[in-house]
Amino acid sequence: MKAVNIGLLGLGTVGSGVLEILRRNADEITRRAGREIKVSAAAVRDKAKPRGFDTSGIVLTEDPIRVIDDPDIDIVVELIGGETVALEAVMRAMENGKYVVTANKALIAIHGNRIFEKAQTGGLMVAFESAVAGGIPIIKSIREGLAANRIQWLAGIINGTSNYILTRMEESGRDFGAVLGEAQSLGYAEADPSFDIDGIDAAHKLTILASIAFGISLQFEKVFVEGITNVTSADIAYAKEFGYRIKHLGIARRTKQGIELRVHPVLIPRKRLIANVDGVMNAVLVHADAVGPTLYYGAGAGSEPTASAVVADLVDVVRAITTDPDNRVPHLAFQSNALQDTPVLSIGEVRTAHYLRMSVVNRPGVLALITRILGDKRISIETILQKGAYLQPEATRPDERVTILLMTQEALERDIGDAIDRIEQLETVYGQVTHFRVENLS
Amino acid sequence: MKAVNIGLLGLGTVGSGVLEILRRNADEITRRAGREIKVSAAAVRDKAKPRGFDTSGIVLTEDPIRVIDDPDIDIVVELIGGETVALEAVMRAMENGKYVVTANKALIAIHGNRIFEKAQTGGLMVAFESAVAGGIPIIKSIREGLAANRIQWLAGIINGTSNYILTRMEESGRDFGAVLGEAQSLGYAEADPSFDIDGIDAAHKLTILASIAFGISLQFEKVFVEGITNVTSADIAYAKEFGYRIKHLGIARRTKQGIELRVHPVLIPRKRLIANVDGVMNAVLVHADAVGPTLYYGAGAGSEPTASAVVADLVDVVRAITTDPDNRVPHLAFQSNALQDTPVLSIGEVRTAHYLRMSVVNRPGVLALITRILGDKRISIETILQKGAYLQPEATRPDERVTILLMTQEALERDIGDAIDRIEQLETVYGQVTHFRVENLS
Repeated sequence: MKAVNIGLLGLGTVGSGVLEILRRNADEITRRAGREIKVSAAAVRDKAKPRGFDTSGIVLTEDPIRVIDDPDIDIVVELIGGETVALEAVMRAMENGKYVVTANKALIAIHGNRIFEKAQTGGLMVAFESAVAGGIPIIKSIREGLAANRIQWLAGIINGTSNYILTRMEESGRDFGAVLGEAQSLGYAEADPSFDIDGIDAAHKLTILASIAFGISLQFEKVFVEGITNVTSADIAYAKEFGYRIKHLGIARRTKQGIELRVHPVLIPRKRLIANVDGVMNAVLVHADAVGPTLYYGAGAGSEPTASAVVADLVDVVRAITTDPDNRVPHLAFQSNALQDTPVLSIGEVRTAHYLRMSVVNRPGVLALITRILGDKRISIETILQKGAYLQPEATRPDERVTILLMTQEALERDIGDAIDRIEQLETVYGQVTHFRVENLS
Repeated sequence: MKAVNIGLLGLGTVGSGVLEILRRNADEITRRAGREIKVSAAAVRDKAKPRGFDTSGIVLTEDPIRVIDDPDIDIVVELIGGETVALEAVMRAMENGKYVVTANKALIAIHGNRIFEKAQTGGLMVAFESAVAGGIPIIKSIREGLAANRIQWLAGIINGTSNYILTRMEESGRDFGAVLGEAQSLGYAEADPSFDIDGIDAAHKLTILASIAFGISLQFEKVFVEGITNVTSADIAYAKEFGYRIKHLGIARRTKQGIELRVHPVLIPRKRLIANVDGVMNAVLVHADAVGPTLYYGAGAGSEPTASAVVADLVDVVRAITTDPDNRVPHLAFQSNALQDTPVLSIGEVRTAHYLRMSVVNRPGVLALITRILGDKRISIETILQKGAYLQPEATRPDERVTILLMTQEALERDIGDAIDRIEQLETVYGQVTHFRVENLS
């Protein structure tokens, strides 16, 4: 059977991984796919740049259009990144009747609705397994493996950089800044780490997961996003005392009122499997009505783990080429004419338990003021812990300070926010109230 | 689009789950599959038996042949169990040109090669996701999600009954017998639990996993099988002291000499994620060259978790009906003409570390005798722990006894076996040497 010809747009970390895997495992992949998959052309930024791997047999060009318009190329693999050139490349490839594989989470999260509409019209397929959680086959597992289920919620550690930083902060007791520097020197964080530590990357991935889980269109702009820069080593240690670990999660949940889409630090009971996913590893926990909880764990980034998912997509696309387009697995799990308009909730409408940390004057009656404010908002308290004198460097008043740690029961985020505002106005409370959401994930 | 008609053979635990899911989630499933999937006939043992669920709209019969031969049935779902009637049913369904979904692990592990050959010849498809690890989409993940990889090994907690018993033994400190009784009263163990606790059920599943991971034919008869009946609460406690937990695993590993296929209790470092999979839950850890380790966790049994996988298979089969059969996902992951004859190793050829526990006379020189025997076999010792007087109830000699715990480095099973035989012949050693294999799983 004739080999399938692949054109790569980009030959960086992931592109070189794709090349390496397709070569090293050529025999196994051919035994599975039933035909050879080979890279015949690649667009690179600089043809003259020395590369650490063999590019013989591959036509290199600096013009992506030459790959996209090459009639001998069957499938275009977009590894350019970003949303501008990548979007043009993917649209043009489809205009040429080509199938597309992409690892670009921003592209899918932001422009996916347009891209899939065009693919649908052209009877084409755009595969994006590598866009979420790297090598973990999470798109396939949710879209096909759990096809029988009404999915209730999912929660994922879907950014390795943030998970590495939180893990190392816990292990070493060191502060965010120090650990970030370490992560950068080890190559686990970018020179500009904001996409990862501010939660944008996780929000792109959550957008995609929510869409395939619930059958809604991609709505990146509605994701509530908070990064990990507010998490301190002290909070991690306090959480441990309560029997919790702090993880940075993407959470999508179906409620009667609508869908929650949120990325933020969360306290999780330590005994949960997902609370024990450490370092750069990713994991996604899915709760579905028939199967119950399932969890998928693996490497969320890196050259070969990501390329593993790209190549799995190539094998799928090769197979799909002979399928009746109407009978293929839909891009977003549900048939494109069957997506729903379920509202996405604002963060104020979300109910979770909360962890509150505040620094107060060590004086009778302070706690009564705080609990009254919570009571007014009908927020029930689960536990209160008062830590001994906890002097903060910015202390300007002579009074002794103590730290109060407080776990609430589930409450509306809006009410918690109002209560925090009022607590911060008390003259016996210093500075801001630190708060993190708590999820039981059972 | 016309509905797809399903015929169920069996309407017990799993069959009723399939019915319930197809009804409750009819809307979601139709939105995914693009057409309605409905049960129109079911074969049951006793039509008159009262059922706790609605069977209206379904033709009930006591003769499976009537379902299998019904020209209106598109897909036959075999939930009879066992290997005789089930095999006849599946073969006859294929003779009638029908697609098949089965949850029957024994059937696939033992007769799968024949079944898939017939399916191949007829251009049909036999789907069996529910046969391994219940609702976890492990077949799909390995077969499609990891299609880019050369898989090196996999290790799975694939029998919930055994995992429940080991978990409860650790939690309660109680003995195997007591915990088995508890499991039976809770419905987690059968009245005759031997299939589960002796490892046969896990061996069926491991046979299937190994085949799709390595591209070899199904070879159930070559699996080395040991159950959990030899695990004592004392061993679980000792293992904990070493930083390990005892789990019952199915392990398939590719080595230069051939493939290891084995089911037995294993000591695993406690910090591994899979060591923390408790109760009736299942998990499979897969190590592959490109993606590295990935882990899949979920419910391995039960009505709806298993039915979740059956219905996912139905959706896949509905889609596959319009695919060119040569371009479908192969039954055993690799094209049927590309399976390999890699030898399966006997257990004697397997190298692992070992935990040895023995009861000896508390007398100088005893340890020297034991270590010399191990040295003669070139078995290196990792750690030795001597526990204080440990009087066993069957003690007949007056000498004080002590327990020696010993962790070896990796050694050939054959050499370990020879060394144990020689140690047991020492007159200063009482009774038998308890031994469990140790796997680092990193």
